[in-house]
Amino acid sequence: MASAAAGPKSNYQWRLGARPQGRVKETDFEWVEASTPELADGQILVRIIYLSLDPTNRVWMEPVDTYMPMLPLGSVMRGITIGVVEASRHRSYAPGDLVQGLGGWQHYYAGDAAGWSKLPRIPGVPLTAFFGALGHIGFTAYFGLLDIGQPKAGETLVVSAAGGAVGSLAGQMGKIAGCRVVGVAGTDEKCDWIMRELGFDAAINYKTTNVGEALQRECPKGIDIDFENVGGPVMDAVLGRINIGARVVLCGLISQYNVQGPAAGPTNFVQILSKRARVQGLIVTDFASRFGEATAQIVQWMQQGKLKYRIDTVEGLRQAPAALNRLFDGANIGKLLVKVSDEPVR
Amino acid sequence: MASAAAGPKSNYQWRLGARPQGRVKETDFEWVEASTPELADGQILVRIIYLSLDPTNRVWMEPVDTYMPMLPLGSVMRGITIGVVEASRHRSYAPGDLVQGLGGWQHYYAGDAAGWSKLPRIPGVPLTAFFGALGHIGFTAYFGLLDIGQPKAGETLVVSAAGGAVGSLAGQMGKIAGCRVVGVAGTDEKCDWIMRELGFDAAINYKTTNVGEALQRECPKGIDIDFENVGGPVMDAVLGRINIGARVVLCGLISQYNVQGPAAGPTNFVQILSKRARVQGLIVTDFASRFGEATAQIVQWMQQGKLKYRIDTVEGLRQAPAALNRLFDGANIGKLLVKVSDEPVR
Repeated sequence: MASAAAGPKSNYQWRLGARPQGRVKETDFEWVEASTPELADGQILVRIIYLSLDPTNRVWMEPVDTYMPMLPLGSVMRGITIGVVEASRHRSYAPGDLVQGLGGWQHYYAGDAAGWSKLPRIPGVPLTAFFGALGHIGFTAYFGLLDIGQPKAGETLVVSAAGGAVGSLAGQMGKIAGCRVVGVAGTDEKCDWIMRELGFDAAINYKTTNVGEALQRECPKGIDIDFENVGGPVMDAVLGRINIGARVVLCGLISQYNVQGPAAGPTNFVQILSKRARVQGLIVTDFASRFGEATAQIVQWMQQGKLKYRIDTVEGLRQAPAALNRLFDGANIGKLLVKVSDEPVR
Repeated sequence: MASAAAGPKSNYQWRLGARPQGRVKETDFEWVEASTPELADGQILVRIIYLSLDPTNRVWMEPVDTYMPMLPLGSVMRGITIGVVEASRHRSYAPGDLVQGLGGWQHYYAGDAAGWSKLPRIPGVPLTAFFGALGHIGFTAYFGLLDIGQPKAGETLVVSAAGGAVGSLAGQMGKIAGCRVVGVAGTDEKCDWIMRELGFDAAINYKTTNVGEALQRECPKGIDIDFENVGGPVMDAVLGRINIGARVVLCGLISQYNVQGPAAGPTNFVQILSKRARVQGLIVTDFASRFGEATAQIVQWMQQGKLKYRIDTVEGLRQAPAALNRLFDGANIGKLLVKVSDEPVR
């Protein structure tokens, strides 16, 4: 079979050009036309189809090692991608394979196959699901809620950024676990969606409502689990109503990622002491050895109609920098991704 | 045997007169002469010998329910005490029994025996030890370090307020567990004491040293456990060097107890997420069912000479309000208590 990848390909890339000061600007990136190198042994050439945009991308741009090594200036911007193998010098991969990995913000990934994984073709499951309930997003919600949050039926769960990719799934998993689930989101449209479509018990628009008063009303038995994606004043309001022995699943702090200089810590931090709460940080890759378990359970929930998700697609890699800010503006509903090229015809 | 308690006794009390604004002032209390009431069935009369002063006393003065109910204005100030029973209408107590309980800031406690416990007379163990290693202080260090901190040999433990009652014990227990132990304290005298007498590996005077740089130097393998008694900038510096999977034993936040208005949360809070750390609040009464276990182990360590403690005694109940501020000034070394009356001759 003739590989479609004979010869180098023109490869547009977004490279990290500067360390952002606060909010990301397009000038923090450089739009570069490169060409794909010849493959060495053990390498694959992947045409990127979808690029995942996640709040943590902003963290990756900082000049510090975090849970991943610092990204040097001039590097292709790091990004989680889904693509199709077009050429392979690795015996486990063949042209046509659908794969997921850190392909970066570019049209083609050419490099080591290590760290990539093949995606199964599941009838009725769209490819984008692997960025949703069946990918890092779904696994984050799953391990965060179940392992760290340890929900019990009858408890009250509050989810911030509840209209976002992770939050919308975590809330639904909370309902499956028998919790009262209250979501906090930034638009009436998101609030409507999580209540009417996803079955949350209540939704609070933090931009138009006094969150503390609303939590008082919607959480009459206090709060047992905080699935925290945001930080800042919303988190403080939630901490103000936690019960003894509460669990805070620290999944994200999106309100702080654009902050320059010292971030504002939770002013209600003393509640953690006074209520003997447990706060635990979550990076989903720590649970990689259990992704199979999560996949099996999530597929079952999807088939039972208990887990819904929504994809918010931006067309074209060129739009990635501007699209990233949609996460911080709260403009996206559900999982935000960039469509870089077309899916192969099956 | 004639009870020494025939008839009412003059009973001086410190009552809570006002809610303190920031630092405690003597005028926040009222010095009142009352007289002891006649005992009802099930009640005991206790002559207070020692009053424990603890940072948490400041928390009890706030007009909110915390881990204990709010103390109403006009009440006798709440305090942990050791005393001797002078009269009893409870069949488990007899005159001469040494007891511990929430006797309050007064010369005599007259009331229900519920919540009090008898103290054993252990040869060679002074009564004050029950406010030190063998009391709530020692149990706090024990359960905080072992249950929440989960130390492993070779790990690095940082203890703040390391010259204080709990911190000095937690650090010694860390040494017993095989950790490298670094203490942070506010005077050179305390630093000398914890290194030379208690065997800490290093001590940092946060008032004269850049804590971040000193931690960098003294914790070359990062920090695995933070036994946190203070909060504020010292905690931020510690969080800046925690390792993946670190544990933060949230035992106290003394730097914040006098703060008016919103407290400053940890500015390095995002480290909890990035390093997948676990922060857990500790109130020692949650472990009451296991105090026996802790007592047995701590007595053994004391007999082996592995646990030392120091008592800082203030003479006379009249001094209690001023003495309380010694905790916030960092003036005490070891356990601070007020001697209210003399120990019975044995």
